[in-house]
Amino acid sequence: MSSQAESALGRLIAFSDGIFAVAITLLVLSIAVPDLGNNQTDANLQGRLLDSIPSIFSFVISFVVVGIFWLSHHRLFQLIREYDRPTLYANLFFLMTICFVPFPTAILTRYGQLTTAVVFYSVSMAFGGLTLALLWWLAAIRPAHRKPQRRMGAYFALRAIGMALVFLVSVPVALASVTAARYAWLAIFPVYLVLGRIFARDIRGELRPGI
Amino acid sequence: MSSQAESALGRLIAFSDGIFAVAITLLVLSIAVPDLGNNQTDANLQGRLLDSIPSIFSFVISFVVVGIFWLSHHRLFQLIREYDRPTLYANLFFLMTICFVPFPTAILTRYGQLTTAVVFYSVSMAFGGLTLALLWWLAAIRPAHRKPQRRMGAYFALRAIGMALVFLVSVPVALASVTAARYAWLAIFPVYLVLGRIFARDIRGELRPGI
Amino acid sequence: MSSQAESALGRLIAFSDGIFAVAITLLVLSIAVPDLGNNQTDANLQGRLLDSIPSIFSFVISFVVVGIFWLSHHRLFQLIREYDRPTLYANLFFLMTICFVPFPTAILTRYGQLTTAVVFYSVSMAFGGLTLALLWWLAAIRPAHRKPQRRMGAYFALRAIGMALVFLVSVPVALASVTAARYAWLAIFPVYLVLGRIFARDIRGELRPGI
Amino acid sequence: MSSQAESALGRLIAFSDGIFAVAITLLVLSIAVPDLGNNQTDANLQGRLLDSIPSIFSFVISFVVVGIFWLSHHRLFQLIREYDRPTLYANLFFLMTICFVPFPTAILTRYGQLTTAVVFYSVSMAFGGLTLALLWWLAAIRPAHRKPQRRMGAYFALRAIGMALVFLVSVPVALASVTAARYAWLAIFPVYLVLGRIFARDIRGELRPGI
Repeated sequence: MSSQAESALGRLIAFSDGIFAVAITLLVLSIAVPDLGNNQTDANLQGRLLDSIPSIFSFVISFVVVGIFWLSHHRLFQLIREYDRPTLYANLFFLMTICFVPFPTAILTRYGQLTTAVVFYSVSMAFGGLTLALLWWLAAIRPAHRKPQRRMGAYFALRAIGMALVFLVSVPVALASVTAARYAWLAIFPVYLVLGRIFARDIRGELRPGI
Repeated sequence: MSSQAESALGRLIAFSDGIFAVAITLLVLSIAVPDLGNNQTDANLQGRLLDSIPSIFSFVISFVVVGIFWLSHHRLFQLIREYDRPTLYANLFFLMTICFVPFPTAILTRYGQLTTAVVFYSVSMAFGGLTLALLWWLAAIRPAHRKPQRRMGAYFALRAIGMALVFLVSVPVALASVTAARYAWLAIFPVYLVLGRIFARDIRGELRPGI
Repeated sequence: MSSQAESALGRLIAFSDGIFAVAITLLVLSIAVPDLGNNQTDANLQGRLLDSIPSIFSFVISFVVVGIFWLSHHRLFQLIREYDRPTLYANLFFLMTICFVPFPTAILTRYGQLTTAVVFYSVSMAFGGLTLALLWWLAAIRPAHRKPQRRMGAYFALRAIGMALVFLVSVPVALASVTAARYAWLAIFPVYLVLGRIFARDIRGELRPGI
Repeated sequence: MSSQAESALGRLIAFSDGIFAVAITLLVLSIAVPDLGNNQTDANLQGRLLDSIPSIFSFVISFVVVGIFWLSHHRLFQLIREYDRPTLYANLFFLMTICFVPFPTAILTRYGQLTTAVVFYSVSMAFGGLTLALLWWLAAIRPAHRKPQRRMGAYFALRAIGMALVFLVSVPVALASVTAARYAWLAIFPVYLVLGRIFARDIRGELRPGI
C-alpha cells in the first residue's frame, strides 16, 4: 500500500470518527433539562429527575446502537486498505444516517410512550443497519480476493442486517405495546451470539491484535 | 517533504476535518423536535412528523452539499504537500463558510416555503462554492509547477464554481417558485458530469489509490 | 507491536478524544444566555451576568473534572499497547458517562441552590470515577506482566476511586448545605497529593517524556 | 525525540484541535434563528434577516479571534517537541477559555447594542489572550535552550498580549460608544504588523515549510 493511499484512508477514518464522536455526544442534548418554573423546590426537581429516567434510558439505547455501529465501522476500516468511489459514497450515506440519529432519539426521549415515536425510532435505526450492511458489502465483500475476508465481511454484514431486522420486527410489537417493543430490542444480543457461533471459525483471532 | 511540513499539514487537515465533522452533525439540530403541547396523541405526532419531511429533506440537501465540499477539500489536501500563508487564510475563510452553513440550513428548514429563505440559502451556499474555488486556485493551481496538477486544480475549481453558479441561477427561479428552485439545485449533477467528461484525460486515475 | 495494532489503538484513542472534546465544549451550552425580555438595559444585563457567576463556576468545575478524566485516559493509553474486548467495552462505557456529563452539569448550573441538583451531580461524577477505575483495572492492571505497570495502574485507579469517594462523601454534606458540598469537592486535591506521596517511587519519571 | 513523546504530544494536539473545532463551530448557534410567529411572510423574514446582520458580524469576529488563537497554538506545537506538567495545565486552562468563547459571543450577538455586552465580550477575549501568552511563556520561552526559539516565543507571546491589550483598551471606548469599541478591535491588525516588523529577523522563514 502506498503511503498516499494510507493517508487518504486515514483522513476518511478521521472524518468518520469525528462525525461519530459528535453525533454520539449530541445525544445527551435530547434529554430535556426540566424547567421547574416558579416551583423551585427539591421535591419538584426530584420528581422531574425521576420522570427523566425513561429519557436517560433512551439516551443509553441510542449510545449503545451508535457504539455498535462505530465498532463495526472501526473493524471494517481495519480490514480494508483501499477504497473506491462506491465505498466512499456508501460511507458518506451511512454517516448521514449517523448524523440523523439525534433526531429520532429526541423524538423517542420526548414521546417514548407513543407508538409513533417508537416506530419512527425503530425504522430510523433499521435504516442505519441496512446502510451499514451495504457499506460492508461494497467495501469488504465485493472487492475481496481471498475467502477469509469475504467470510469476515459476511459476518459483519449479517450482524448489521440482524440489527435492522430486530428493529423492524419491533415495529408490529410496538403497535401492541411500546414497552414490549423496547424489550424486543434486547433480541440483538442473542442474534449476535448466534452469528458469533455460526462464524466462529472465520472470526477466530479477529480480536487480535486490534479488537 | 520534511517530516515537519507533513506534521503541520496533518494538523491543518485534522482541524479542518474536525470543523467539517461538527458542522455536518450540527445540521440535524435544525430539524425542530415537534412540541405536541397538551395533545400528546399518536395522531398528532404522526401529523407533525409528516410535516417534518421537508425539514428532513433540507437536512439531506445540506448534508450532501457539505459532503461535496468535504470531498473536494479532501482531494485538495491529497494533492498538495506544502501550503503558504494565503492558502492558510483562504482555508480558514472557507472553513468559516462551512461553520456558517447550519444557520441558512435552519432558516431553510423552518421557512422553506418562503422565497426569502430559499434565496438566503442559495446565496450562502454559492458563497461557499466561490470560497472553495478561491482555495483551489491559491493552494493548487497558482503554485503548480507541472501541468497535470494545474489541470486537476482547474477541474476541481470549476466544479466549485459550477456549484456556485447552480445556486445563483436558482435565485431568480425561486422568485417564481420555491419548489422549482429546489429542483434546480439538482442541476449540479449534470454539471459535474459534463466537467468530468471535459477533464476525463486529466482526472484519469484520480480515484486510485485514494478516492 | 504490529503496525495494525498501533493503528487500531490510534483510532480508539482518536474516537475517545473526539468524544472528550465535544463533551467538554458542550458544557458551555449549560450556561443559559439571559433573556432580558422588554427590559434591554445595561443595568438589567449586568444583574443577569452577575447572577450567572455560579453557573460559570459550575461550568469550570465540570471542565476541571472532565479534564482530569481526560488526563487519566491520556496516561492510560500511553501506557498500554494492546487492548482486548473487555477493555474496549469498558472504554465505551466510560465514554458514555463522559457524554452524559453535560446533563448533570446543566442541572447543577440551573438549580445549583437545590440539594437535589448537587446530589444528582455528585452521584453522576462519582459514577464516572468508578467507571474510570474499572477501565484502569481491565486495561492496565489485570493484563500487566511487570510490577511497575501494575503499580502505576494502581496509582491511577486509586486516583479515580478517590475522586468518586470525594463526590460520594459530598452527598451527605449537601443534605446539610449545598455550599459546603461544593467546597468539599476541593478535597480532591489533597487526596491526589497524598496518593502522589504514597506512590512517589512508582510514578517517578512518569511525566517524561510525555506527561 | 522518542516515538512515545511524539505520540503523547500528538494526542495533546489532537485533543486541543478537537476542542478548537467544536468551539469555533458552536459559535454559529449564537446567531438566533428568527421566530416569525404568525407573520410568516417574506417581508417579515427579510426584515429579521437584515436585523441578524450585526449578529452575523459578531459570529465573524469571534471566528477570526478563535482562528487567530488556533494559528498561534498551531505554531507553538510545531515549535516544541516536549512538554512538562505546567505546559499541560496551562494548555488545559487556555482550552477552557476557548470552550467559554461561545457564551460571551452569544451575549454579544444578542445584546451587542449594550455597553455591558461589549465590555463582557472584550474582557473574556482579553483573558483568552493573556492565557495564551502564559502558555507561550511556559511552553516555549522558559524551556528554550537556544536564542532563536526564545525570540520566536517572545514574538508570539507579545502578539497574544497585544490582542489582550486591544480588547482591554476597547473597554473604556465602549463606555463612550459600542460602535467605536467594535472598530477599535481592528487595531489588532496594525499591532500585528508592527510586531512583525520588530521581529522581522527572528521570524524570517517562519512560514516555511509549514506556516
